[in-house]
Amino acid sequence: MSQDLTLNQRIVLVSRPTGAPSPENFRLERVALPDLEEGQVLLRTLYLSLDPYMRGRMSDAPSYAAPVEIDAVMTGGAVSVVQQSRHPKFQQGDLVVGSTGWQSHSISDGAGLMPLPAGIPSPSLALGVLGMPGMTAYMGLTHIGQPKAGETLVVAAASGAVGSVVGQVAKLQGLRVVGVAGGADKCRYVVDELGFDACIDHKADDFAQQLAQACPQGIDVYFENVGGKVFDAVLPLLNPKARIPVCGLIAQYNATALPEGPDRFSLLPRTLLTKRIRMQGFIVFDDYGDRHAEFFAAMVPWVRDGKIKFREDVVEGLENAPEAFIGLLEGRNFGKLVVKVADA
Amino acid sequence: MSQDLTLNQRIVLVSRPTGAPSPENFRLERVALPDLEEGQVLLRTLYLSLDPYMRGRMSDAPSYAAPVEIDAVMTGGAVSVVQQSRHPKFQQGDLVVGSTGWQSHSISDGAGLMPLPAGIPSPSLALGVLGMPGMTAYMGLTHIGQPKAGETLVVAAASGAVGSVVGQVAKLQGLRVVGVAGGADKCRYVVDELGFDACIDHKADDFAQQLAQACPQGIDVYFENVGGKVFDAVLPLLNPKARIPVCGLIAQYNATALPEGPDRFSLLPRTLLTKRIRMQGFIVFDDYGDRHAEFFAAMVPWVRDGKIKFREDVVEGLENAPEAFIGLLEGRNFGKLVVKVADA
Repeated sequence: MSQDLTLNQRIVLVSRPTGAPSPENFRLERVALPDLEEGQVLLRTLYLSLDPYMRGRMSDAPSYAAPVEIDAVMTGGAVSVVQQSRHPKFQQGDLVVGSTGWQSHSISDGAGLMPLPAGIPSPSLALGVLGMPGMTAYMGLTHIGQPKAGETLVVAAASGAVGSVVGQVAKLQGLRVVGVAGGADKCRYVVDELGFDACIDHKADDFAQQLAQACPQGIDVYFENVGGKVFDAVLPLLNPKARIPVCGLIAQYNATALPEGPDRFSLLPRTLLTKRIRMQGFIVFDDYGDRHAEFFAAMVPWVRDGKIKFREDVVEGLENAPEAFIGLLEGRNFGKLVVKVADA
Repeated sequence: MSQDLTLNQRIVLVSRPTGAPSPENFRLERVALPDLEEGQVLLRTLYLSLDPYMRGRMSDAPSYAAPVEIDAVMTGGAVSVVQQSRHPKFQQGDLVVGSTGWQSHSISDGAGLMPLPAGIPSPSLALGVLGMPGMTAYMGLTHIGQPKAGETLVVAAASGAVGSVVGQVAKLQGLRVVGVAGGADKCRYVVDELGFDACIDHKADDFAQQLAQACPQGIDVYFENVGGKVFDAVLPLLNPKARIPVCGLIAQYNATALPEGPDRFSLLPRTLLTKRIRMQGFIVFDDYGDRHAEFFAAMVPWVRDGKIKFREDVVEGLENAPEAFIGLLEGRNFGKLVVKVADA
């Protein structure tokens, strides 16, 4: 019999959004957690990651992962501290990262929990530059993008968790790197702080022309994480033998219907054929889940030595996660969006 | 001074078609050929290949190859006999294959001319199963399609030069193979003669349902050579980690405008992402031009031993090439379309 039950604060999915999510799709609730059983750990969440892919989990349309059930806790990666352990591999005070969801506490049998990478400068980076988004950037760029010095790479959401790493790694490999971001502040940061060669504001009326001017040698690698009008502008600029890793399509996630015609479906196969282009979707943990060591070996030194910079957008309090997530889909965040759930 | 000038019969491009080509786009003409210079050979064409890619060369829209100029000889691969040689590597009577165009004779400095593969059962096969179409099938399937025993492959134009080889090679590698062809005769041939597991008539009203029924385990490799409604029906059937080599889009070649809406452009990137699919365009001689030895080593024995069957649709007389080519784009041929220009 437990003497003091742990109260868990959690955010569950109440209803599936049509179009953009709204606060009414979420509910904050408090429930008592059961006692730990042998082989389990009790985790206290420190940082919750908010990422665009979560929009897909709110829908029951066919996707690459099962949807979150109604009244179930929202899916999400988080950094937690082990508060209590009845598991031989974990000790009280250990810091771990895992897909523990939008909640203040969780009980785990250890499956899928990883220790933070050795040498990490601060725990929340295990959700960003040294976590799923950083690994998405590194693996997609390296294995599908196959960048070569002297080539031109374009990536959108360039100040974000994935795009910022894609561009900086490509710069380290000797490419010309052009970012796309929303607004002058983000574009300035991308060029001045991250060292991209150029960054184009997708809100500009002449966005497509500006992008073309920034890519006088065409585009050899387009790292696709947004879709929509950015891809439309990229398509005619692609060079023969270009590579297009596809990790996300955030511009399309809230769409409720296809746009009006004409039907441009055939444009993409035609471009892939005539320019002999490789386009490939991937989900980092499904396709490269066994390659954390390769990722950390490359990235931890770069981050520690300041060769890869990062920016976090930290929201305080689990209760603010829904609003922050809604803003993420609108591009309101600036840097990797994390929710600080509790102090260590 | 030449005593008897060689008269060359040739077909030139008169005008660029809008939509489907018509006979008025071509002109048959006779011109005298100049004397041979040192280092040249005079070739007499025996068989001319007609292939869908030629439609692209008639247009001046951006494509993977420069268009045929107005009043220039139509591009095309052919088997020829060396009629006269002032080139040290060629002797009178040699049979060669090369891109010598829609004409009865040609003069060459030897660049791009290849001897027929050793062991070829008949010369015209160097334009089909043992030529560009066969190599397109073999290279795209092997290097991009990466077929594995037990998987399901779909290929359209299944009785044609490329599709028939794709399906038969995949059968030899242990895949379930479903063809798509136009009409009951072609479908019967594909199943009964070529040994495909099934073949669906794309003219059937319930084509998409029939295709789905023929692919109960989904589709792992879609070898894309047609586009259009076949690809529309394939898209929802694709399995995670599917591969789509793209060698042609014949259904779209005569299109003059995009279809009416809605705009389905985003469907393809979304499918590639959520199912982690690789789609890659290729042009066989650009991407695999140095791999003839690999191709012949695999295919010549298969053809000689009857493990890969083939069917030719032979049209007599160069003057009939335009009409035959127009029919090719409408699917009127049955088997690899070649024009017999002269007897050996």
